[in-house]
Amino acid sequence: MSELAVRAEKSDAADELAGLRERFVLDEAVYLDGNSLGALPAAVPGRLDDVVRRQWGSLRIRSWDESGWWTAPERIGDRIAPLVGAAAGQIVVGDSTSVNVFKALVGAVRLAGEGRDEILVDATTFPTDGYIAQSAARMTGCELRPVAPDEVADALGPRTAAVLLNHVDYRTGRLHDLPSLTAAIHAAGALAVWDLCHSAGALPVGLDAHGVDLAVGCTYKYLNGGPGAPAYLYVRRDLQDRFDSPLPGWNSHAEPFGMRTAYEPAAGAVRGRVGTPDILSMLALEAALEVWDGVSVEAVRAKSLALTDFFLECVGAYVPEGVVESLTPAAHAERGSQVALRCRDAGAVMKRLVERGVVGDFRSPDILRFGFTPLYVGFADVERAARVLAETVG
Amino acid sequence: MSELAVRAEKSDAADELAGLRERFVLDEAVYLDGNSLGALPAAVPGRLDDVVRRQWGSLRIRSWDESGWWTAPERIGDRIAPLVGAAAGQIVVGDSTSVNVFKALVGAVRLAGEGRDEILVDATTFPTDGYIAQSAARMTGCELRPVAPDEVADALGPRTAAVLLNHVDYRTGRLHDLPSLTAAIHAAGALAVWDLCHSAGALPVGLDAHGVDLAVGCTYKYLNGGPGAPAYLYVRRDLQDRFDSPLPGWNSHAEPFGMRTAYEPAAGAVRGRVGTPDILSMLALEAALEVWDGVSVEAVRAKSLALTDFFLECVGAYVPEGVVESLTPAAHAERGSQVALRCRDAGAVMKRLVERGVVGDFRSPDILRFGFTPLYVGFADVERAARVLAETVG
Repeated sequence: MSELAVRAEKSDAADELAGLRERFVLDEAVYLDGNSLGALPAAVPGRLDDVVRRQWGSLRIRSWDESGWWTAPERIGDRIAPLVGAAAGQIVVGDSTSVNVFKALVGAVRLAGEGRDEILVDATTFPTDGYIAQSAARMTGCELRPVAPDEVADALGPRTAAVLLNHVDYRTGRLHDLPSLTAAIHAAGALAVWDLCHSAGALPVGLDAHGVDLAVGCTYKYLNGGPGAPAYLYVRRDLQDRFDSPLPGWNSHAEPFGMRTAYEPAAGAVRGRVGTPDILSMLALEAALEVWDGVSVEAVRAKSLALTDFFLECVGAYVPEGVVESLTPAAHAERGSQVALRCRDAGAVMKRLVERGVVGDFRSPDILRFGFTPLYVGFADVERAARVLAETVG
Repeated sequence: MSELAVRAEKSDAADELAGLRERFVLDEAVYLDGNSLGALPAAVPGRLDDVVRRQWGSLRIRSWDESGWWTAPERIGDRIAPLVGAAAGQIVVGDSTSVNVFKALVGAVRLAGEGRDEILVDATTFPTDGYIAQSAARMTGCELRPVAPDEVADALGPRTAAVLLNHVDYRTGRLHDLPSLTAAIHAAGALAVWDLCHSAGALPVGLDAHGVDLAVGCTYKYLNGGPGAPAYLYVRRDLQDRFDSPLPGWNSHAEPFGMRTAYEPAAGAVRGRVGTPDILSMLALEAALEVWDGVSVEAVRAKSLALTDFFLECVGAYVPEGVVESLTPAAHAERGSQVALRCRDAGAVMKRLVERGVVGDFRSPDILRFGFTPLYVGFADVERAARVLAETVG
């Protein structure tokens, strides 16, 4: 057994989070794609079966009240809240991330008020944020300016209404400095909208502590909610009264069953709701979130950094120099919970890795992505992944 | 046994659709709320369990390709298409009805072109359509005019860009004349957007035959897709190239995995997609749609009219005159698949009906709604419902 394999074994033995793996359905593969689709939490199949057979099949419409269907978006939002550093009453679950980006960005421009007609967007963003930001700009009479996150501070000006940024870059895994960027945006009188898709559930976010204005995120990566599980929208409490949604569906009405012709927005986070909540997916997510019971995000972050450090070390030891290049920052303060390696023929390499039981993913044009989910990935997994990678590219 | 009960028995014996009831999970109650939440199709629990345990739990991300997750929105759209009289390639499933109303209405205004800055909306609409239409009008610089459906023809003018109408009124059950209204809208140079929530799966719609421009609908009423199941968007084939979505998420990109900075819309119905599809709910819907195998919508319509006719007859025979008043048109050409009865203390009456195993619903302020789903409601159910109603209000 190599020295690294021995160290991996010791680290696993000392890992206080190691037991959480039992809360998931996993197999022999090393699953390093939880940053794309989280593994199945063991509680989900049974819960969903109850939702389908009893709540839908037997109680039917009574479940809107009796099974808590109607209030699921805000109840599940409150369950996500501590994971992203938010007090209760500021998050609702529903719709896709893209739709929530639209709500958040149009809402932010309206909150910014007259005379501010420019939106800045992370130039390296996952594409959908950029596409939706373009539409939000077009429909609010704003100009959209793509700006690299480290140039945001210089780009801010008196015209800036809102800035849409990713907490962690989807390709490189770079963690952006949410506290200082948010402070700079506020100093310029603009609103900060953060996309937490690649950070929520992997590291502390601190939405309330850092005064973030609006945020969105998906729930199918580190939150393990299932394929295409509903996303969420955070609106800071003191902005909620003035939040003016571009998608004011009946679920956001102050009295949804009053069936009024005139729209009157509900108070609170509920104002971010739109249409009838997607109950099957939503309650699967609720069951999935139980894996977080008793888990501290700080402990998850500590293990995540240890895992990515160890992976980079193993790759350095096993893979011949020059074959792969890490795009993920070495500094902890700049690293999310994934490692991106640039590599020739990355698509073909990833295919072979998957065949050999090491599951990451490929991102165009030349990137191998490996996500490290501290709830179910261990150090021996990491050592094995690096070893198989070395054999595959060697 | 009363004469009506005898007739009910005979009608059930002669009903060619009676066997379809076995495709659902039902109990002793008379379920007349399928116009709110369709009953559970028997195929759903097993299918969803496979989706969760095998497709998500075991195949994980491979399922995006191998289990057909990625193409589900258009594949399931094609399964809905024949039920609403559409050829394949014009419907995508996803998002809520409200979100799809926004896409359709903004898309319609953009298709209408310069100089048209007015949206007409059904003044009696289910509220969400009106709220979303208001937002669509605001964000496209249009004026919104609520108009009763029978006044639409007179209200149309050279400024009209688009008209949003409900095929069946959610309260009264009135069926609007889609062919002639669509023709009138076209004659005025405007686009017709239809909301099919209360007609799809209950009666023939004929989207293609009548040249409807855009349409939306939910899938949890007569299509039995489950609570909050994803809605759908129809864009007529010859408009698709110019359809300009206000929610151009990455799923609508010509090359979604190219991760391009510049947005380039996909061809076809796929252009109506937005974010990552909500797979659990979507594949539950796909299983639910199997109940339509071999079923003709025309036969469903014939039975639906026979059921509502018979219900009105039984109510007339059993309930003392003046106690309830039907708001549902007597003429078949103006009737959907529900009966709305105005009644004093309607909320309390419905509560007692539900306790006695007759499940309809209450709509503010004074309406008892009874939906008739020909796939699983029989004539004896109808007679029993009217009898219990008479005992309850008597």
